[in-house]
Amino acid sequence: MNKRLMSKMTWMEVRDAVEKGVGVILPIGATEQHGPHMPLCTDALLSERMALDVAKETDLLVAPTVCYGFRSRPCTGGGQTFPGTISVRGSTLTAIITDVVHEFIRTGFRKIVLFNWHFENSNFIYDAAYNVYEDTKRDYPDLKLLIIETPFSDLKPETMEYVFEGQFPGWGIEHASIFETSVMMYVAPELVDFSKAIDDQAEYYPFYDMLPIPKRITAESGILWKATLATKEKGEVVWKEISKTLIDSVNMEFKRWEKEN
Amino acid sequence: MNKRLMSKMTWMEVRDAVEKGVGVILPIGATEQHGPHMPLCTDALLSERMALDVAKETDLLVAPTVCYGFRSRPCTGGGQTFPGTISVRGSTLTAIITDVVHEFIRTGFRKIVLFNWHFENSNFIYDAAYNVYEDTKRDYPDLKLLIIETPFSDLKPETMEYVFEGQFPGWGIEHASIFETSVMMYVAPELVDFSKAIDDQAEYYPFYDMLPIPKRITAESGILWKATLATKEKGEVVWKEISKTLIDSVNMEFKRWEKEN
Amino acid sequence: MNKRLMSKMTWMEVRDAVEKGVGVILPIGATEQHGPHMPLCTDALLSERMALDVAKETDLLVAPTVCYGFRSRPCTGGGQTFPGTISVRGSTLTAIITDVVHEFIRTGFRKIVLFNWHFENSNFIYDAAYNVYEDTKRDYPDLKLLIIETPFSDLKPETMEYVFEGQFPGWGIEHASIFETSVMMYVAPELVDFSKAIDDQAEYYPFYDMLPIPKRITAESGILWKATLATKEKGEVVWKEISKTLIDSVNMEFKRWEKEN
Amino acid sequence: MNKRLMSKMTWMEVRDAVEKGVGVILPIGATEQHGPHMPLCTDALLSERMALDVAKETDLLVAPTVCYGFRSRPCTGGGQTFPGTISVRGSTLTAIITDVVHEFIRTGFRKIVLFNWHFENSNFIYDAAYNVYEDTKRDYPDLKLLIIETPFSDLKPETMEYVFEGQFPGWGIEHASIFETSVMMYVAPELVDFSKAIDDQAEYYPFYDMLPIPKRITAESGILWKATLATKEKGEVVWKEISKTLIDSVNMEFKRWEKEN
Amino acid sequence: MNKRLMSKMTWMEVRDAVEKGVGVILPIGATEQHGPHMPLCTDALLSERMALDVAKETDLLVAPTVCYGFRSRPCTGGGQTFPGTISVRGSTLTAIITDVVHEFIRTGFRKIVLFNWHFENSNFIYDAAYNVYEDTKRDYPDLKLLIIETPFSDLKPETMEYVFEGQFPGWGIEHASIFETSVMMYVAPELVDFSKAIDDQAEYYPFYDMLPIPKRITAESGILWKATLATKEKGEVVWKEISKTLIDSVNMEFKRWEKEN
Amino acid sequence: MNKRLMSKMTWMEVRDAVEKGVGVILPIGATEQHGPHMPLCTDALLSERMALDVAKETDLLVAPTVCYGFRSRPCTGGGQTFPGTISVRGSTLTAIITDVVHEFIRTGFRKIVLFNWHFENSNFIYDAAYNVYEDTKRDYPDLKLLIIETPFSDLKPETMEYVFEGQFPGWGIEHASIFETSVMMYVAPELVDFSKAIDDQAEYYPFYDMLPIPKRITAESGILWKATLATKEKGEVVWKEISKTLIDSVNMEFKRWEKEN
Repeated sequence: MNKRLMSKMTWMEVRDAVEKGVGVILPIGATEQHGPHMPLCTDALLSERMALDVAKETDLLVAPTVCYGFRSRPCTGGGQTFPGTISVRGSTLTAIITDVVHEFIRTGFRKIVLFNWHFENSNFIYDAAYNVYEDTKRDYPDLKLLIIETPFSDLKPETMEYVFEGQFPGWGIEHASIFETSVMMYVAPELVDFSKAIDDQAEYYPFYDMLPIPKRITAESGILWKATLATKEKGEVVWKEISKTLIDSVNMEFKRWEKEN
Repeated sequence: MNKRLMSKMTWMEVRDAVEKGVGVILPIGATEQHGPHMPLCTDALLSERMALDVAKETDLLVAPTVCYGFRSRPCTGGGQTFPGTISVRGSTLTAIITDVVHEFIRTGFRKIVLFNWHFENSNFIYDAAYNVYEDTKRDYPDLKLLIIETPFSDLKPETMEYVFEGQFPGWGIEHASIFETSVMMYVAPELVDFSKAIDDQAEYYPFYDMLPIPKRITAESGILWKATLATKEKGEVVWKEISKTLIDSVNMEFKRWEKEN
Repeated sequence: MNKRLMSKMTWMEVRDAVEKGVGVILPIGATEQHGPHMPLCTDALLSERMALDVAKETDLLVAPTVCYGFRSRPCTGGGQTFPGTISVRGSTLTAIITDVVHEFIRTGFRKIVLFNWHFENSNFIYDAAYNVYEDTKRDYPDLKLLIIETPFSDLKPETMEYVFEGQFPGWGIEHASIFETSVMMYVAPELVDFSKAIDDQAEYYPFYDMLPIPKRITAESGILWKATLATKEKGEVVWKEISKTLIDSVNMEFKRWEKEN
Repeated sequence: MNKRLMSKMTWMEVRDAVEKGVGVILPIGATEQHGPHMPLCTDALLSERMALDVAKETDLLVAPTVCYGFRSRPCTGGGQTFPGTISVRGSTLTAIITDVVHEFIRTGFRKIVLFNWHFENSNFIYDAAYNVYEDTKRDYPDLKLLIIETPFSDLKPETMEYVFEGQFPGWGIEHASIFETSVMMYVAPELVDFSKAIDDQAEYYPFYDMLPIPKRITAESGILWKATLATKEKGEVVWKEISKTLIDSVNMEFKRWEKEN
Repeated sequence: MNKRLMSKMTWMEVRDAVEKGVGVILPIGATEQHGPHMPLCTDALLSERMALDVAKETDLLVAPTVCYGFRSRPCTGGGQTFPGTISVRGSTLTAIITDVVHEFIRTGFRKIVLFNWHFENSNFIYDAAYNVYEDTKRDYPDLKLLIIETPFSDLKPETMEYVFEGQFPGWGIEHASIFETSVMMYVAPELVDFSKAIDDQAEYYPFYDMLPIPKRITAESGILWKATLATKEKGEVVWKEISKTLIDSVNMEFKRWEKEN
Repeated sequence: MNKRLMSKMTWMEVRDAVEKGVGVILPIGATEQHGPHMPLCTDALLSERMALDVAKETDLLVAPTVCYGFRSRPCTGGGQTFPGTISVRGSTLTAIITDVVHEFIRTGFRKIVLFNWHFENSNFIYDAAYNVYEDTKRDYPDLKLLIIETPFSDLKPETMEYVFEGQFPGWGIEHASIFETSVMMYVAPELVDFSKAIDDQAEYYPFYDMLPIPKRITAESGILWKATLATKEKGEVVWKEISKTLIDSVNMEFKRWEKEN
């Protein structure tokens, strides 16, 4: 099968795929500031591209991306003070995913992957998945839901060293910075204006949140750490490592689940 | 200004646009079957493309498209029996739009256009707009909301005659048929497989709905009427007529509103 | 059976009817301005009266009328600026109908008709019906829901000519005007003060909505078009044509459904 | 002013009343079994009639009645096992009243009375009133809400003795029995079939509830106590006593509130 | 079995209890002013203590107490004007109880008691119980829910005379007064500062509510009636009478239900 | 001031504290399995105790603990398969906190700390805080919300070494294991049965979730890692380090915020 993006398929193509046991992956992102050098769609785009790379190797279709995510925070995304960051309430995000997953089931999918690339969406996705699961488990005992709220576990030590050059600030703060800029330079270079990439940071990043958001915990540019260390080559390395991990995980899990039934 | 798609802009570009008084248009579509010859994204794509054409001439940015719409119906979209049609509850659609419009306001937009290309979304959009308006009217007396639930009023008689060749079935039934296929052939020909376009129809199309949906009111192919009469040329004519009407309307209304304040 | 209005029946009478396979129709209306000459209950009253006429010929009981509807709009009802128009949010309307239909099912009804006479209620009713249907389809496979959001399809050409005398403005704008005034003069003349009927209109009626509502799209009197052309005789003609269409449709559909099972 | 029922008034008549400082009363009832001798609308009808009697003497309009109430219970209304009892969830009832009261405020009313005649609606009405009050208190400091969830306090001892003849079972159990049947015989005798009135009761009425509802706490006929002791004369006595108390209370409270401002 | 408080049990202990057919009781209270002499937790504490006393004799576990209740009212709890009273919306209370009861069922409990000690929580608890019951009755036909919204029916006449000394004001007004103070002196004397107990009352207590709350219906101290008549001995008498009634009722009802199955 | 627990204070004591500018901290926990050796209340208890320790040094009152949290997960809490784990939907948790914080504001608190000790509650708390903040920022410009969803940032390296002895599995997996058992042995030794502490783990802990939950990612005992390495001494060390960090943070932040105003 060549086509993967459901949005570009006809209903008959989807029907035929479903009848062959193909599953579906739902990319979930955000519309959120990513510094002066990257677009608002960064999370949505990366989520969709990675979902597509994974789908090709795991026999899944890619559903239309959920492009509005939960509220950004100062220490992981800049926070809800930047113009252009367009977020939704948690209950709204949960409602969208709940409804869409119900429709996946009605369409006939039994292998469903929820794939997220926006830290702040965590738990709302699981909430939706759990509710659908509870509602449908009697009628669809063969339904399997794989919920990937954080797109990867830690990278290999040598990759970490290569990418961050000893300056890893923690994944939360890695927003619009070395890692994410590198990945975007690899995946969508036409959307990155590297000439505007800078190194920035807030006065400090606490382990808690505050409202109203004080300036002292906000990185003024929206880059929470160092963007100048990013390179396309780094992007390629981490992208391939992450996609490999995801592909292996998805394939392994559905295979094991199948055996258990 | 060259950039129009918020998704591809940085937060600083959005901020600068807002400061110049630029407004925003939100395309709203659906993921819905459109026959054996057109993709599930038809409504979302047309909504976004038209929004973009309008935005260029009316000083608006285009926000990321709401690509999951309210439930399809037999006599206007084939109904909720087709695999691939992925819909949300009305309250979910209302919640998304409510939240997004609140964020437009926080970002600083004061001219907001909600633009829909999926018949069944009607009223949920107005519900959202009205609720935001009621909640914010005291704090933002200069806020203006233009809600376009149906993308155009009747076309010129000569256009109707040219496009439908005397076989206009009513706008509801015009789903994946002459008009919509023509427009897609003009706007996104790479997504139309005209070799699969057929003429189809249900036994009859009542003015009411039924659940469970009986086969007798369902067009089996998902084409509710005649798709074979579609041509790219027809698509171009109606697209240009509609976009002109919309551009004139948006410009005229914001101008008159401004004078009234 | 003589009694049709559930409100005036005892529970035992309802029980006996249910045991004989009788169905139920739920009238849905609004509390909305209808000009200086007609009462706020116009939509609720017409909905209930028509439901009653239909019920008598289709073996249905008439449930208590839902008399608060979704928000009025400038180009179909005058809009939410008139005092006396008392509307509810869409989610509230959906909730009422959802709950009531669940209770119809508990009571034992298996043929359920939702009948609406307020344009703006559309889609919320279908949302409710669809949700109940999805929730109950496994437990009540014999349940049939007929959802009539617009009370009729186009009238016969000769009726249109007789009623509108060549001045038909479109059904949306036909609010508190020729058609509706005529019908009220026939059905509830004691509630019409024809001496106050006038011809009115807004500066123009766009195909979109605006908030805040500008005066230029509001008919000051609440009559959106010509009320002076109304007569009781016209009312009788259209009432009878509509009720006949509805009776025929309801009877035909339930009969066909029954055969299919 | 002669007209009191908003449903039968035009928007201009409502506007004129509002401008004179007239208030509004919202009758809230239920659709609930009331034995073999009384109709399902008993609570809705009594609520509306009493509201009307009160309105005439307190300068209020009567809004359309909320005729679907919260779930019936075995020991106060027979419980949700009777066919014909059509109830809504608590959150639905709260939503209706919340929206309607917001619209009263938009219409211009500043004196609002919520009047209930269905025991089980209690607290949902207060919930709605409190939420509206919290939302609007800054913008409408002159708004006054009077919430009457139980339509009267204890009757005079001599009235109690006259009506119940020493057999008062408590107000909860007084459902479709002496008091309510008497009142209906006075207010709407055409809807009472006294020949079917009987004396009935459950094996016992606990101070708690049970689900599923056991037969032992259900009065089989829906009459929870003695209906045969009812007379029209008793109905007249209590109706007049209650309406007098309500009129005096409403007038007194709004007068004192006014002085305090 | 010695342990009763689920909060202090391990999951294995709960599992073992469930396997033996043990049920569960959920105490529901409030955080609400109780005069100058008693703590905000009075309702939560009394609910939990009584639940514990009942649980020991009826083979139930005691779940963690719901300590935030619905809004207080002037004539039954002082009303939402006192600092320290921390209440939730009705829909929130319903949501908590709904979710918790669903989890009781998942855990394996089939005998569930909802036990309330805060007048204003009534109906929200039943709403939750009814919704869970409707959702689960097919899958768990052996589920039994006992809903105790008011913790007791009338006390014995001699107890009433002993406790109130002829000055019983009605149960609503009995807030932070003779009865409740006595009970707290018996159950948690360390939390009562009897030196601050006074006799108080509002100018009057109407049978209706008002918003904004006028001072004339508020007891300034939060004691709605006479607290000085309270004694520990009275507390002991009523506590034992109530707990006995509850124990007898719970045991009797589950036994009879069991026989019916 | 000696008293800190609002539940044990009178309304007058709370009022007096508020008038002196005292703030409030809301402990948020869960009812969740914590292995065969620790009680279900572990998260709720630790949250409350830490909140109390912090409150004493930061001039805050401690509100009643939210003891039902969001759903447990296999790799951070064992998952929703253990009996005794009693969780709520995310929207319910958000609703509780939203309502309670609104009431804190009504009571007069302007310094509000939300303190969580249950990993899975994250984001729902922020959702609530953000919504309240948006709703109230105009009316209460001096309101400050500190949201602590994870109770501490990384411990000192030497503490980590001392506690985990080189066997730190990541904070997610640290459930009912070395750290949490140590802390409970220090804070509430009477609730720990160390004789039942074991070392356990699932076959593996993926970075994603699965529904239905496969046995291979579940630690059968509910202890996700090694509990036998726990000691009371370790508990004391980390408790004191964490409380110190929290106290310093809370004091510092409110002080800096104050200067900024």
